[in-house]
Amino acid sequence: MSDSALAAPLGTTIRQMRETRGWSQELLAEKADLNRSYVGELERGKVLASVLTLEKLARAFGFSAAHLISQAELLASYRHVRGLQLTAIAC
Amino acid sequence: MSDSALAAPLGTTIRQMRETRGWSQELLAEKADLNRSYVGELERGKVLASVLTLEKLARAFGFSAAHLISQAELLASYRHVRGLQLTAIAC
Repeated sequence: MSDSALAAPLGTTIRQMRETRGWSQELLAEKADLNRSYVGELERGKVLASVLTLEKLARAFGFSAAHLISQAELLASYRHVRGLQLTAIAC
Repeated sequence: MSDSALAAPLGTTIRQMRETRGWSQELLAEKADLNRSYVGELERGKVLASVLTLEKLARAFGFSAAHLISQAELLASYRHVRGLQLTAIAC
């Protein structure tokens, strides 16, 4: 898990997209045909999604799997830049 | 596996990107820190990539994981349209 730069940002992305729609984890799980506890672990970045999970989530949210990943990559790059800024302030 | 609409197009995308660069499966496996036989199975659409595998492949090819998935989704949509056309011809 720690090798993945995207697990945590992807989890945040999934949670944000779910909350934007006012959906519970149970509802997202139902719409995406996934286990509720698995959705919770995904949102906390505790498990790594497979391509099939990405497809299911994207279908539930109504857009492409590439969009889901691109949002996570955008968030990961923001975090990286913020990390660099904090390092610069500390130096 | 059969539930995933992207496994086969993703495999084709990976193979095309590798061959465009003139890389062997062994070389891609080495660059992406993956097992050679796993790369072969991915290319044949026999296994489902995880997000970490997408990250490793994207890093080896020098672009984003979202780009890799978007290419696979594009290919999947072409195949879908072609399938519809063939169905229309048969009708």
